[in-house]
Amino acid sequence: MSLFPILEEISQPTPSKILFVVLDGIGGLPRQPGGPTELAAAQTPNLDALAKQSMLGLQYPVAPGIAPGSGPGHLSLFGYDPIRYQVGRGALSAIGIGAEFREGDVGVRGNFATLDAAGRVADRRAGRPSNEENVRVVGKLKAAIQEVEGARVSFYTESEHRFVVILSGAELGEKVSDTDPQKTGVEPLRAHPHDPADAASARTAAVLNALSARIREALAGEPTINGALFRGISERPKFPSMQQVYKLNPACVASYPMYKGVASLVGMRVLEVVGEEDAPEGKVKALQAHWAEHDFFYLHFKKTDSTGEDGDFDAKVHKVELFDRLLPELLALKPDVLVITGDHSTPSVLKAHSWHPVPVLLHGPYLRNDPAQRFTEDEAARGTLGTLRGTDLMPLMLAHAGKLQKFGA
Amino acid sequence: MSLFPILEEISQPTPSKILFVVLDGIGGLPRQPGGPTELAAAQTPNLDALAKQSMLGLQYPVAPGIAPGSGPGHLSLFGYDPIRYQVGRGALSAIGIGAEFREGDVGVRGNFATLDAAGRVADRRAGRPSNEENVRVVGKLKAAIQEVEGARVSFYTESEHRFVVILSGAELGEKVSDTDPQKTGVEPLRAHPHDPADAASARTAAVLNALSARIREALAGEPTINGALFRGISERPKFPSMQQVYKLNPACVASYPMYKGVASLVGMRVLEVVGEEDAPEGKVKALQAHWAEHDFFYLHFKKTDSTGEDGDFDAKVHKVELFDRLLPELLALKPDVLVITGDHSTPSVLKAHSWHPVPVLLHGPYLRNDPAQRFTEDEAARGTLGTLRGTDLMPLMLAHAGKLQKFGA
Repeated sequence: MSLFPILEEISQPTPSKILFVVLDGIGGLPRQPGGPTELAAAQTPNLDALAKQSMLGLQYPVAPGIAPGSGPGHLSLFGYDPIRYQVGRGALSAIGIGAEFREGDVGVRGNFATLDAAGRVADRRAGRPSNEENVRVVGKLKAAIQEVEGARVSFYTESEHRFVVILSGAELGEKVSDTDPQKTGVEPLRAHPHDPADAASARTAAVLNALSARIREALAGEPTINGALFRGISERPKFPSMQQVYKLNPACVASYPMYKGVASLVGMRVLEVVGEEDAPEGKVKALQAHWAEHDFFYLHFKKTDSTGEDGDFDAKVHKVELFDRLLPELLALKPDVLVITGDHSTPSVLKAHSWHPVPVLLHGPYLRNDPAQRFTEDEAARGTLGTLRGTDLMPLMLAHAGKLQKFGA
Repeated sequence: MSLFPILEEISQPTPSKILFVVLDGIGGLPRQPGGPTELAAAQTPNLDALAKQSMLGLQYPVAPGIAPGSGPGHLSLFGYDPIRYQVGRGALSAIGIGAEFREGDVGVRGNFATLDAAGRVADRRAGRPSNEENVRVVGKLKAAIQEVEGARVSFYTESEHRFVVILSGAELGEKVSDTDPQKTGVEPLRAHPHDPADAASARTAAVLNALSARIREALAGEPTINGALFRGISERPKFPSMQQVYKLNPACVASYPMYKGVASLVGMRVLEVVGEEDAPEGKVKALQAHWAEHDFFYLHFKKTDSTGEDGDFDAKVHKVELFDRLLPELLALKPDVLVITGDHSTPSVLKAHSWHPVPVLLHGPYLRNDPAQRFTEDEAARGTLGTLRGTDLMPLMLAHAGKLQKFGA
């Protein structure tokens, strides 16, 4: 059951500041049984010293056994039950590419496909085109189609065969079936509203059916990419904000569109970060520049996940060590509460997000003694925070920061 | 919130095989403070070696403080929230005795009772007759009554004063009140449908009221057992199957009707086991014979519970040691994932199911390091799986077996 009604009642604004560091995909695995994980292999003098003065534990972002995507992983860390607060695939793609995507807009995940002469799907991914090829075809569509059946249509490249359509400027609904038949040898499906009486969703379906035909016309001369399949039709979700539930004035310090998008969904102000890619120094500068203005900072580092996804154990170790070198600058800001964790594990031996619980470190006032000596999976398993769910972290941070009153008399 | 909608979406069939061993009632207690539990007292070289290469933890089958019966204990292990997926008392008895009990049938738990000359309940348990006496009276009822008000009626001995009635062959409902008044000195109640407009349940009530009278006629000459009280009127429940939710092709290897019944409720194929009572060798043979045919095997051993229920600490230790000797044959099957746990604790000092959490051992690929050295309560409490709920185990097994895709993008 969600704690939100209770938290909304007992949360209170205070001047104390929380710094919430998310090292994406930080949890790992040993390369061979008994060996060190990436965190254990890293030389981390600053993290080690901090761990000795902190409480540690493990957290399952969604539930044991569940490997979360970035969306549910982060929503859970922000305290939003990821089963209840789901983001549709189209909306998540729209958010993930950093598109302009407002309340009332509908996001659609598109696949470029190859259709045969009879209009049947021959390849659902059009031979997995390059990103450059995708950009070229998206450019062609942008030039040819701006409006369909009264709705504005915007196209965006995602990657390879994947693109995003955002529909706006009309009363649109999201309760619409996919046109992707999920198999070859049959024609693309027609989009249907789940309920014919739902006029807004019926309008979305009509737009998408007309759009399918317009895309085929526009791409008629293309040898491979000559059709599109739509799925995950979804509005920008309306979630309660962190301001409303926690009485926080929260800010996001991240570089990649997906994380900025999820942060903005829960009401965070997205601070500008100057620098290339993960821009660790740019993030520290952004924190320093805006430290006086907010009481909650979400600070995201991506590369611990990317290196894990690449299966590069040593590179992930190196990214941990890079973070360790930044840590003194974060501590110099003197956050009242500092929490370090990840949105999921990405063990380099798996080259993928995994279901393994993620180490969490909580530094601040009112700590119990804790035997953990380092910020590693093994030590966190001995920590006195025990085994938590991702959604437990926000209330814990707020409590240590003095931002929660007693519940009940 | 149930994970079933998510699991149904992200589960995928793979060739990997899961062996899920349930040592019934395995958790225990020391005989005196500081002493060993049954598991700790047992000589278990094979389990010890396995524990050193596994992850361990503790699991609460239902919730802390709750001592589960076999039904909810097992449903939880199979991933079914035991609060949401409850089995009515009559249905559980019908399943537990191994009766033929199909969808649409109604199971009723009967108590043999003694009624006085005025038809009032004098003894709700008819002096607790022997099982032999129960069998004799059930035989008399079988001979006298096969059909009542258009419904087929089947009688089965459970034990002592307990019997089971299964109604079938008519459109019957389960929303019917008990006839057991739960006290003496009053007449048995008449069965009523909870809602008079519910025709199927009204029919069940009419059948039971007529059946009460027919039983009194049939037993009119009996000195003690001359009436029957009905309760727990319930249909065979319709649960989502493990095939549907997990995409598994699951099989059950168990000897006792209750466990086979619960397994069949969730869609498992019940394999034939040859041998007397718990038949450990027969179970291994059944596993070996059908190993190629399934991807999930539930393997149940009963005697660790029975000896605990008897309060026989040493006998329970012996049953653990017997399992330890079987373990190499199980490992020789090379399951991709092997999990060993119990459906609840049955400490011999309590002679009953208890609420204590149950050790769980997970062996397979993608393990974190774990300090636990043995499969005991104390060592499991130090394990890196942490403290889980029973329903967490299925997703964990599926994840380690590669049968779950990422949740959300």
